[in-house]
Amino acid sequence: MNVEFINPFISAFKNVLLTMAQLDLAAGAPKKKTEELAQGDVTGLLGMTGPQTKGSFSITFDETLALEIMSRMLGEKPASINAEVIDLVGELTNMVAGGAKNTLGEKGYDFGMATPVVVSGKDHTITHRVDGPKLILPFKTDVGKAHIEICFEKA
Amino acid sequence: MNVEFINPFISAFKNVLLTMAQLDLAAGAPKKKTEELAQGDVTGLLGMTGPQTKGSFSITFDETLALEIMSRMLGEKPASINAEVIDLVGELTNMVAGGAKNTLGEKGYDFGMATPVVVSGKDHTITHRVDGPKLILPFKTDVGKAHIEICFEKA
Repeated sequence: MNVEFINPFISAFKNVLLTMAQLDLAAGAPKKKTEELAQGDVTGLLGMTGPQTKGSFSITFDETLALEIMSRMLGEKPASINAEVIDLVGELTNMVAGGAKNTLGEKGYDFGMATPVVVSGKDHTITHRVDGPKLILPFKTDVGKAHIEICFEKA
Repeated sequence: MNVEFINPFISAFKNVLLTMAQLDLAAGAPKKKTEELAQGDVTGLLGMTGPQTKGSFSITFDETLALEIMSRMLGEKPASINAEVIDLVGELTNMVAGGAKNTLGEKGYDFGMATPVVVSGKDHTITHRVDGPKLILPFKTDVGKAHIEICFEKA
């Protein structure tokens, strides 16, 4: 998986949170996912299929960060992850994947996006099962961490 | 969403577990998912995209059931959900979606399958975010419950 494929997801995620929540994400170095499991409290997931490849995409948030985004975007901060936060994470996942899809489409990589699914549960782990490299992109903010995982394999 | 769309998933799930694990699933009545959240310990998820529709599909297992399937298929029963169980749930998810895809393809409904993602975490919840009906299909066994959720919307 080359940089041309990853950067659109990083840019889209940073753009979405900056525009929608005035939140500045510090992107860490992408790393290959091996044995270690990244954990979080709420995750948006989305499947991708296309003529060249298929794969899966996820964004996992710490609860603190998800609640802060909720507060900044909608002006209310629930005590914990509720149905509105889950909706918001689904919507953000759609927006980030959609932004990356547009950029990649311009470069000739087309894929169809499935509908998003949101997982909620303290310290859950996500395992993308692809026959190919798995990349984790870590992001930091003052109020918690997020990470994106992207995996593609040949269709 | 009509019965023609749902039955292939029920049949495929029952067939896969009967063939692979000699486990007989009792299928309960499908119900529309409203507010209530179905919970489980390990879930296989898979996105679907096609010319007529797109959607998402998941199978959620109680830990007890996932471990029993592992034991019956591979002859070893780990104490809790580990990497092998996660692999197995991903593989089962692929097989069930693949079986349903074949049946639906024969009926003229084609869709592409994304790669599966497996979620692990005690009592996590799954929320499919589609603009359309969400169906839960409950299944019972002597050693725990499973449920399938299928959601489609117009592409």
